[in-house]
Formats: sequence, C-alpha cells, structure tokens
Amino acid sequence: MQMKKPAEVLLLGPGPSPVHPRILEALSRHTLGHLDPDFLAIMNQTSDLLRYVFETNNQVTFPVSGTGSAGMEAALVNILEPGDKAVIGVNGVFGQRMVDVASRCGAEVIEVEAQWGGPVEPDLLEKTLTAHPDVKLLGVVHAETSTGARQPLEPVVELARKHEALVLVDAVTSLGGLPVEVDRRDLDIVYSGNQKCLGAPPGLAPITFGDRALEKFRNRKSKVQSWYLDLSFLTRYWGEERFYHHTAPINMIYALFEALSIIKEEGLEERFARHLLHSSALVAGLKVLGVQPVVSDKYRLPSLIAVWIPENIEDSEVRSRLRKDYLIEIGGGLGPFKGRVWRIGMMGNGSRRENVERLLKALGEIFNQLGHKCSHEEALSEAGKVYQQQI
Amino acid sequence: MQMKKPAEVLLLGPGPSPVHPRILEALSRHTLGHLDPDFLAIMNQTSDLLRYVFETNNQVTFPVSGTGSAGMEAALVNILEPGDKAVIGVNGVFGQRMVDVASRCGAEVIEVEAQWGGPVEPDLLEKTLTAHPDVKLLGVVHAETSTGARQPLEPVVELARKHEALVLVDAVTSLGGLPVEVDRRDLDIVYSGNQKCLGAPPGLAPITFGDRALEKFRNRKSKVQSWYLDLSFLTRYWGEERFYHHTAPINMIYALFEALSIIKEEGLEERFARHLLHSSALVAGLKVLGVQPVVSDKYRLPSLIAVWIPENIEDSEVRSRLRKDYLIEIGGGLGPFKGRVWRIGMMGNGSRRENVERLLKALGEIFNQLGHKCSHEEALSEAGKVYQQQI
Repeated sequence: MQMKKPAEVLLLGPGPSPVHPRILEALSRHTLGHLDPDFLAIMNQTSDLLRYVFETNNQVTFPVSGTGSAGMEAALVNILEPGDKAVIGVNGVFGQRMVDVASRCGAEVIEVEAQWGGPVEPDLLEKTLTAHPDVKLLGVVHAETSTGARQPLEPVVELARKHEALVLVDAVTSLGGLPVEVDRRDLDIVYSGNQKCLGAPPGLAPITFGDRALEKFRNRKSKVQSWYLDLSFLTRYWGEERFYHHTAPINMIYALFEALSIIKEEGLEERFARHLLHSSALVAGLKVLGVQPVVSDKYRLPSLIAVWIPENIEDSEVRSRLRKDYLIEIGGGLGPFKGRVWRIGMMGNGSRRENVERLLKALGEIFNQLGHKCSHEEALSEAGKVYQQQI
Repeated sequence: MQMKKPAEVLLLGPGPSPVHPRILEALSRHTLGHLDPDFLAIMNQTSDLLRYVFETNNQVTFPVSGTGSAGMEAALVNILEPGDKAVIGVNGVFGQRMVDVASRCGAEVIEVEAQWGGPVEPDLLEKTLTAHPDVKLLGVVHAETSTGARQPLEPVVELARKHEALVLVDAVTSLGGLPVEVDRRDLDIVYSGNQKCLGAPPGLAPITFGDRALEKFRNRKSKVQSWYLDLSFLTRYWGEERFYHHTAPINMIYALFEALSIIKEEGLEERFARHLLHSSALVAGLKVLGVQPVVSDKYRLPSLIAVWIPENIEDSEVRSRLRKDYLIEIGGGLGPFKGRVWRIGMMGNGSRRENVERLLKALGEIFNQLGHKCSHEEALSEAGKVYQQQI
C-alpha cells in the first residue's frame, strides 16, 4: 500500500501549525538509541532550550512523550491525590478537559465558569478559594484554543500565593507565541504542546515543574495512578541518573530541538512581536470582510483568532472550499461554538504576512462566490495599514 | 544551538531497531491537520495495515499516541477497575512493569513468577487461576525484551477461556518479527511498540482490542482513570465519527504507515523466516566466540537474543568499544541481568546477514584486544553454515 503524498496544505487552523523544512529535515535524521551518549546530550540540550522558551531555571523541564493532552494529564496526575481539592477556571473546552482529568485523579474539583471568549474573572476565583479552604491546585488555561481568549496570569498567581495553592497553567497555544514567563510570574507547573507556537510536529508535550510543585509531589501519600507519566521515573530518565523508563521518541525530540533552536535564533521578544503584528493585520483585514473576532482586543490571543462566521455563510462549505481550492486549513468551532465560529491559527512559522494575505484573498473570493459581497482588495489594504504602522 | 548530526550507529540493541530510509523519508513529509480528509484516509489505511500485521479483523486496532509502555497502560487502565483481579506472569522486567501498572488501576494483582530466561509455566498459571476465582484478566509477555524468552501463547489462552478471563499479551518485541496471530490464537488485547520488529522510530504503540475485551470495557462501572488513554474517546477519534480527542502525532503515523507497508511488501511469513534465519546464524557464530545464549533453543526469541557475558570480560568496556570503534549498539542487562547479560536485537530492518557478520567480527576483534582469544573468522564460518543450510 502506498501512502498518498500529503498535499502542501497551509495550516492556519488551531494546530498543528506549519512545520519549517529545517524541522522536517531534523525529524528524518538517523535514529539513535535512547541511551546513546550522543542522544543523552541532545536530551540535555533540549531541556536547556525548553528552559529558554519557558523562561525558567526549573531543573525539571522536559517533553512528555505524548501530545499536549498527555502534558495536561502528567501535570494533574502527579500533583492530585484522591481527596485533594482543585479549583479550575473553565472558559472553554480545555478548561473543561482539565476538570475531567482532575476528577479522574479522585480530586474534588470546583469549577469556576466564565463566558466563552473571555477570561476567568479573578474575583470569582477569589470567592471560590475563600469558600473552599485547603485548595491544593488552581488551574487555568493561558490560551484557550477553543475560544482564542488569553487569561491574564498575574492575578491568578497572586490569589494562589495568598491561598497557598499551586498554580497550574495550560500554555499549549501560548508557549513560543506570547510571554509565558514561568519564573518571573512564579508559575508552578506549566505544560504545552509541540504543534502550536513552537512549530514542531505534534507528539510531544513540553512541561516544567517548579520547586513548590516538586515538594507537593514528594509529599504524596499514594502512588501516581499513571506509570507512564509518573514524575519519579521521568525525572530519573531525564535527570543525571539516566535510569531507563520508556524509550523516548527519538526523532520527535530531534524535531523539537530544531524547533526550539529556530525560536532561540529568532529571539523570544521578536517572535512575540511577530505573532502580535500578523494577528493584528489579519483581524483588521477580516473585519473588512465582515468577519468579527469573538474576543475583545484586550484578551485576544495573537496565536489563535476565533471569529464569528458571518450570517448566511455556511461553515463547512467555506472550510471545504478553502481546503480544496486554496489548500488552506482553518478550524471549526468546538462545543457551543460549532458551526458559529472559525478558529484561525497564526502560530509559529505560520505567522507571516504572506499567509495573512493568502487567507484574506481566499476568504474574500469564497464569500463572493457564495453571494456575500465583499472586497478582498480592501481587506488587504486594511491589513497593509497595520504593517505600515509597524514600520 | 546546533544539534550534533547523529552518527550512523547500527542499532543492534533491544530497540529502537534500524529505521529504513523509506520510513525516515515518510516521517519528514508535509504535516497535515489531524482532521484533514487526506490524513483521515491515512489513519484508516494505517489501521488496515495494523490488522494485517496483528492478523486480526478487530475493528478497534490503532496506534496509541505514546511509546510501547503507553500501550501497556492503555490496555490495563481500560480493562481493570478497583477491586478487579488480574493474574500476571512475571519472568522479566516487562512482566514486573505490567504488575506495577495493573496495581495502579486499583486491581488485586496476583503474580505468577518464573525464572528469568524461561517462559511462565502454564501449570503454575492454572493453579493460580483455580485458587483465585473470578480473575478478569490474565496477562503475559509474549517476547520478554529483558531476557529474550518467548512465551507460548496457546496454553495461556486455553486457561483463560476455561477460567473466563481476558488474555492480555505484550507483543512489543514480537509483532512483525514472529507470529502473533491475534485472531487464530483468540487473544483479547494485544499491544506493541513501533521501534522493535516493526522497524519504525519510537513513539507509537499499536494496540488491538477484541469483542470480549470491548464488552468488558462497556460494562465498566467507573470512568477510566486516564483521560488520555480512555478507549471511549480513542475509538470515537479512530472510528467513523472522527470526534476530536487529541491531536494525533501526524508524522509518526506517516512513518508507521510506511513501516507497515514495507512489512506487507515483504510478507509476514517471509519476514518471520528472515528473523529466524539471522538470529540462528548469529547464535551459531556467538557460540564460537564463547558467548552463550541465555534462553534455550525452544524458547529463544528470534528478535532479541540475550547472551551471557563471558567471564573476565567487562560489560561496559565491550559495549563502549562497540559503539565508539565499530558504531554498533547492543544492549546491557536489566535488573538481575545487569553486568551479566548483553541483549542483541535482530529486529526489523536490522535482521540481515551483513549485520550478523559485522557484529561477530567486531566482537571477535574486541575480545582479542581484551585478551580473550577467539577467532571471528571461525565464528563467521559457523554463521555461514546456517546460511548454507538455508539454501
């Protein structure tokens, strides 16, 4: 059986994002053994590069051998034990997922809900923490991939310190695209995924644990319910001991290494500015086409822009024309946003002017085909103004 | 930071095995979205190819998004609930691991121990099953990677049927290298890993669940403790519904597809015969060098040959010279075999005459350097006789 050669689809959905050719080349390098001295050096360097991107000195910083959701699970199963209390902010699918995963650890989970498209209000978190003493963990999603909302982290950390809870942050769609700043913000546990702003192929979940989290881990009374994700084994393999636990996904780590190197070459500040610039230009152009962002300017992610599907425009028709006629992927809505929202990723290597313009042009043409009159030239011109302001 | 180019080390350890250039090329193809129609077709074809290699018609057959150990965990967490009883055969590290993972599911685990290097005796399993009524799951390791022993499966299945238990089989080091025959042998749950006899890079764990196992799964009283490995979600993503669960490791699946295609082109029978031939030749040659296999002919795996390190020969000295001077990796022993045993993989694309000869020559030369007189020419000649018998 022969695999159909993958078409060169431009990935402007909620991830995976476009993978740089250098990363694909790294992925295809000769597979070394998982205890080969040269591979062990690559592991160390990968952790160093992850520390750079997370902006942390945390010793325990490595990629979990699974996708972003495995990172979420690794964070929760290592900290939560039956009977522990966790407060989790829910303003989208990934907050809900965190609740589900935490509940499966036997923890008592208190949800703090917020409207989809906005952040979780610190006031509500505060009330909840006050009403429930001895909360072990306060979890929030920094970048809600289902809504495109950014959660301000400072007030969350302040509350956690006051109530002596750990702060867990889902940075799947933020790491490498906007500041996460683990140490400066004093975040305790942060995980991400390869395939968003880091720009690597999906399959690894970078994670970092600070001292406060590690102390809670060491004081556990019960075994971690997941053998695969048990931090006591993982730190022995990723640490100096190099104790065999599982066979690391060698080639995926080559790819992550290369993706992180590219980020370091570009510089975090430059990369964050680039993500902001192109998403601003995109939003300016989309508005001309009659497409409004779901999230207000203040809380809108630069990496993932959720937009309302214009009235009388059919979701799947547009997305299938984009894919078929223009080789562009954008994402549909999840849950209550299904059929009402598109999710456009401007992540990693995908965050570029040519992609902004290609998408605006394609959407404009499709809208006109569907009888929704608009001008993509005007949209491009509005986007262009954003770029001009920049200069 | 630049990644050091991986040296072309010949992987003759316990895995990963040498990855065919076609597979590395597939790995580096353009990353598609995880819900792209072309990728969904690739997922379907991958499941079909897995059914061919597992020799099963099981609908629920797919790669778990993690390494082989994640496959083990997926098998156990989906079946075992707190209070369930499991009998597990332990004749090496991976049986022990199964016990650990099963215990973390809250199951009562009854171990049936056997000597390292041999199989678990059916008589002992029978006694245990009789002494413990209502055992839900009987788990064995088909190919113990820590000892090189093969577990005959027919008597295990017979006992399981008699005692109405599910049979769980770890086929990490057998699938694609020796017959697993899921349907003919009536195995209920079988998992494997990419990086052994399948010859793909590490990172995925093919798994298959039969109807009997699925019925037990559907009758669970509690939620699966792992959200990431919950079969109810996984079957919805890998099934027709295509319900989003996690972002599949796209490029790893390309690689697995290609590895399985290569297996299908070769044919299972031919592949099994090849594994047997080259391991027989290797063992014949090793004996001339004074290196004796740990496992008797009857139970020795063709894919992984554990051998006793000759007296007065230092384990790490030989392995580091092999790696440094000859660019060959072989594995050391685990647990009680540490420092006493080497583990030589003849798996997938590594199972070839040129590799047998390269290893015999290298080992012979190193032994002589270390004052252990032997003739690698004689070893090659003995190995050659095995090849001649074949013709």
